[in-house]
Amino acid sequence: MTDPRREFAIIDQYFAGLITTTSPEIRLGPGDDCGIFSVPTGAEVCISTDTLTAGVHFPLDAAPAVVAHRALVANLSDLAAMGACPLTCTLALTLDAKSATDSWLAPFAERLRQLIAEYAIPLIGGNLSHGPLSLTFTVLGTVPEGRALRRDGAQLGDDVYITGYPGDAAAGLAQLQKADGPQAQALLNRYQYPTPRLATALALRGIASSAIDISDGLLADLGHISERSHVGIEIGLDRLPLSSALTESFAVAQCREFALAGGDDYELGFTASVAQREAISALKRSTQVPISRIGRVVDGGQVQVVDASGRVVPVNYRGYTHF
Amino acid sequence: MTDPRREFAIIDQYFAGLITTTSPEIRLGPGDDCGIFSVPTGAEVCISTDTLTAGVHFPLDAAPAVVAHRALVANLSDLAAMGACPLTCTLALTLDAKSATDSWLAPFAERLRQLIAEYAIPLIGGNLSHGPLSLTFTVLGTVPEGRALRRDGAQLGDDVYITGYPGDAAAGLAQLQKADGPQAQALLNRYQYPTPRLATALALRGIASSAIDISDGLLADLGHISERSHVGIEIGLDRLPLSSALTESFAVAQCREFALAGGDDYELGFTASVAQREAISALKRSTQVPISRIGRVVDGGQVQVVDASGRVVPVNYRGYTHF
Repeated sequence: MTDPRREFAIIDQYFAGLITTTSPEIRLGPGDDCGIFSVPTGAEVCISTDTLTAGVHFPLDAAPAVVAHRALVANLSDLAAMGACPLTCTLALTLDAKSATDSWLAPFAERLRQLIAEYAIPLIGGNLSHGPLSLTFTVLGTVPEGRALRRDGAQLGDDVYITGYPGDAAAGLAQLQKADGPQAQALLNRYQYPTPRLATALALRGIASSAIDISDGLLADLGHISERSHVGIEIGLDRLPLSSALTESFAVAQCREFALAGGDDYELGFTASVAQREAISALKRSTQVPISRIGRVVDGGQVQVVDASGRVVPVNYRGYTHF
Repeated sequence: MTDPRREFAIIDQYFAGLITTTSPEIRLGPGDDCGIFSVPTGAEVCISTDTLTAGVHFPLDAAPAVVAHRALVANLSDLAAMGACPLTCTLALTLDAKSATDSWLAPFAERLRQLIAEYAIPLIGGNLSHGPLSLTFTVLGTVPEGRALRRDGAQLGDDVYITGYPGDAAAGLAQLQKADGPQAQALLNRYQYPTPRLATALALRGIASSAIDISDGLLADLGHISERSHVGIEIGLDRLPLSSALTESFAVAQCREFALAGGDDYELGFTASVAQREAISALKRSTQVPISRIGRVVDGGQVQVVDASGRVVPVNYRGYTHF
């Protein structure tokens, strides 16, 4: 690490190829004081940033590909939650002695390359420095003016939906050290390699009245829609879509706790008027992404869980918070 | 730190006020999955990101206001080096136990508030997490299409200029522990509270042929212009503008080493054709920012230092590199 050219050598070897200048919006890639991009006429830009630190947000010995995947997808999921189309991203990467090596950087960069190509989000610039291992992606996406899916649009009487199967990632994390058998592997996979719901989110523009990304836990995140939209939300306990991988691995009470309070799912929670049920069914069929109607928007300012007879079920766990 | 509402409490108390929605480009501030901004028609967006980590880029006991100042200015200086007008920024802040306190956060946020107001760069969003103290700003600015000051435009025969007095910051850092007297304080001040040259940079659009920010050391950074523009650069040793604070504190050889190889100055290095000398003199007078002509663009691919008779002076130090 004392070679003065090491910083540039790492960038050249592992990261230079991650800027795909085939995108017409990228006017200048890495190598200057700033990258430069343009924005299509009539579009607004959505921006989000997120830091993952080793030993805090992922285990110190996490596979480099898992680190790359979870860090970028955590950010892509924020773009999805706004209905934004990926435009570009930056990466500020702090490497320690263990990660400033080929055996760490090669699989890390390879996974990034795959994701950048798959989601068309060229890396326009970044920063490489020395210190405790951490990554900060900043992602940018575009939406037609005024059409972003915000948290503050939920209306009384709207339905509440989620994509995917909440709780799988938290269950995968819980059994990280003892994952055994195909079900356990399926859960672990949802934790390690989540899917950002970008295509579904783009199709939800004009359909959903509000949206959020379920990464801090379903109840906690729907709480943000409730708060910003000044409404209550009622979730049907027996409407929670639980994956077979989850229900075959854990008792039902534990499954529900994972689903309601576990984080890291990177699925979308959204609301839509009853008039949109048909459109959402069509979307489910065309995208093959599981979408479940799990509740409705009601009066009040809380998120509550109710049983089949409409009685409130007390829950005493919360989502993930960072402090 | 076990209070589950602590994260939101910190954001509300210290950072919520840093989003100034008076800017017409800010369409949605913090509190959703993304912030949203618009870009003026005909403009391109410049983006840069930089991480500062405690114990690596600043001393563990650095004053919070100094940390805030240097972190944001390091990024603003990158916008200046492109001739970009500040638009917005995000901050991913990782706090340890010592910094997640009022005595650290209050002066940190207060300094940020001042800078954000002074340079009109509202904080559109961010991320707060727990871990070793570090900060990653991502800054965005606008330039009229095609008018950014890039590193690759230097032409044979151009003059080479710098703003300010190189070496002061490095000298200030070198005597951080024993700063005593007004000269030492002046140097320390240049290290702790650098000035991004945004106004000068905006005025240099259409005048400068290339520009870079001198934060890794004058020789190292001019080397990037040389490389990207495929030219050589010749610096006159006796043309280096040395501040009186520097020359009164150190022997001349040490002053020159600080000026040529010390980092952290956040001044601009730029090139301009000989025909622009008049315009640059006028700019100096109107902005009151010191600008010195220190050399010229020549054939070749290296940065060399020459004495008054044009003889090459061997220098064997380099600028700061991160690995």
